Amino acid sequence: MAKKTPLDPAAAFRVPSGLAELSAIDPAGTPIGPQDKESGAAALADLGPDLAALQEKLYAGATGGSEHRSVLLVLQGMDTSGKDGVVDKVLGLVNPAGLRLASFKKPTPEELAHDFLWRIEKQVPAAGLIGVFNRSQYEDVLVVRVHDLVPPAVWEPRYAAINDFEQRLTDSGVTVVKCFLHISKEVQKERLLARLDDPTKFWKYNPGDVDERGYWDDYQAAYLDALNRCSTDAAPWHVIPSDRKWYRNWAIGALLHQKLTELDPQYPPAEFDVEVEKGRVAAS
Amino acid sequence: MAKKTPLDPAAAFRVPSGLAELSAIDPAGTPIGPQDKESGAAALADLGPDLAALQEKLYAGATGGSEHRSVLLVLQGMDTSGKDGVVDKVLGLVNPAGLRLASFKKPTPEELAHDFLWRIEKQVPAAGLIGVFNRSQYEDVLVVRVHDLVPPAVWEPRYAAINDFEQRLTDSGVTVVKCFLHISKEVQKERLLARLDDPTKFWKYNPGDVDERGYWDDYQAAYLDALNRCSTDAAPWHVIPSDRKWYRNWAIGALLHQKLTELDPQYPPAEFDVEVEKGRVAAS
Repeated sequence: MAKKTPLDPAAAFRVPSGLAELSAIDPAGTPIGPQDKESGAAALADLGPDLAALQEKLYAGATGGSEHRSVLLVLQGMDTSGKDGVVDKVLGLVNPAGLRLASFKKPTPEELAHDFLWRIEKQVPAAGLIGVFNRSQYEDVLVVRVHDLVPPAVWEPRYAAINDFEQRLTDSGVTVVKCFLHISKEVQKERLLARLDDPTKFWKYNPGDVDERGYWDDYQAAYLDALNRCSTDAAPWHVIPSDRKWYRNWAIGALLHQKLTELDPQYPPAEFDVEVEKGRVAAS
Repeated sequence: MAKKTPLDPAAAFRVPSGLAELSAIDPAGTPIGPQDKESGAAALADLGPDLAALQEKLYAGATGGSEHRSVLLVLQGMDTSGKDGVVDKVLGLVNPAGLRLASFKKPTPEELAHDFLWRIEKQVPAAGLIGVFNRSQYEDVLVVRVHDLVPPAVWEPRYAAINDFEQRLTDSGVTVVKCFLHISKEVQKERLLARLDDPTKFWKYNPGDVDERGYWDDYQAAYLDALNRCSTDAAPWHVIPSDRKWYRNWAIGALLHQKLTELDPQYPPAEFDVEVEKGRVAAS
């Protein structure tokens, strides 16, 4: 059942310490694993049953035992980098009952009336679950910083606050897996144009995306800072080359698989006397 | 893309009006569709891509257009009838981003301090989503009635309250699809014993399940009343023969497929000038 991969995606994709610029990492790279689209899709499909089995054990442990751990996959990236695609193609491989998805959009007035982590905390996955953040607490040091939505004196302390928050999650049993979906500016243009060329994709396009694209360099700088300042041993950042969708999907699937394998969840033992219960059922 | 099924699961499974007893419907029956396990699994797999495509359109319409509709699949049934299995095998066929799952367990003190529909209302799927209730508002006329958790004067008016609630949901654009997963007492015994025979299934077993089994006839009577009193044109009940897991999964998949096909969701038109945007992106 459990196929051990000899690869180490956590190490291969972990952001190097003191990264000087994002362009030092090739968004079209394929540093480990499959090297072409066909083998990438096959490798991801191959992980599916094992991912589902690991997830079932984690879920089972919390439902019928004392498992207190969970996993939180954080997806960040520029528009079109593929956050939604990962949810569909990677998380779609496991039982939806064990998933908890949260998308963080522009904050509501109620959310803005609280500290920035207030809405985040409510979405932390409970024991046994795989949580997925489509955007996250990092928006508050990305879009907020790029557009001066609050002054530096407010966003500057947030890096430390995020590190403290993620350390607390980790201490409480949440494995935090952070992925930056790294694309090139050229590929973003291609993908935006593709959305405009296909009426079944119009719904994915927003004119505001082009405005945001105008801040590309500011966003890259803000991402670089977030990656450097918030990649801790407790919750390291991973840079996922995402110019190739098949590679991005495989890489995140493989990373999630590795983390779940390390957790090594187990079906819980019976908390009842099995023979006694067999007798009771038989007599019923 | 859209494969029309010539079958009519909504009619085939709809509870007959004035049903005198549940035993009049064969829980091992296969009234329409596939007649053996192999073709049942194939037929469900065959529905998968089309279910996913319909769901994507519904989701797209709400995300990038003015679609206000949603679907709510209500799953009820005795222990081991397969509510969790349906979530995995049927809802697992679509993009998890478009799903909203809610499991209703024993109410919390906070929930008990409110009207019985308070916790339900919070989980109604928003526009564009497929919601799934694993147990539902009906628990309050099932377990509550069987165990006299509140007096008849409290649970008796709930049938009408549920009908009013579901009428309101329907009026607001929610297609309510209610499925009773109908199993025989013998099959329940087999499934409970199977859970006790397999250490990877211990977590699904709870000694309380045997106690509940002791109230089988009372539950069947309570279900019969709920089916008869709350099967309305706005939100009819369906009785899904569930002694055969493959048939149950296919039947609910086919019913959901039929309802989505009837909704006929469409990709929304662009709410922007496509040519203007192409120019903006190209120049960016």
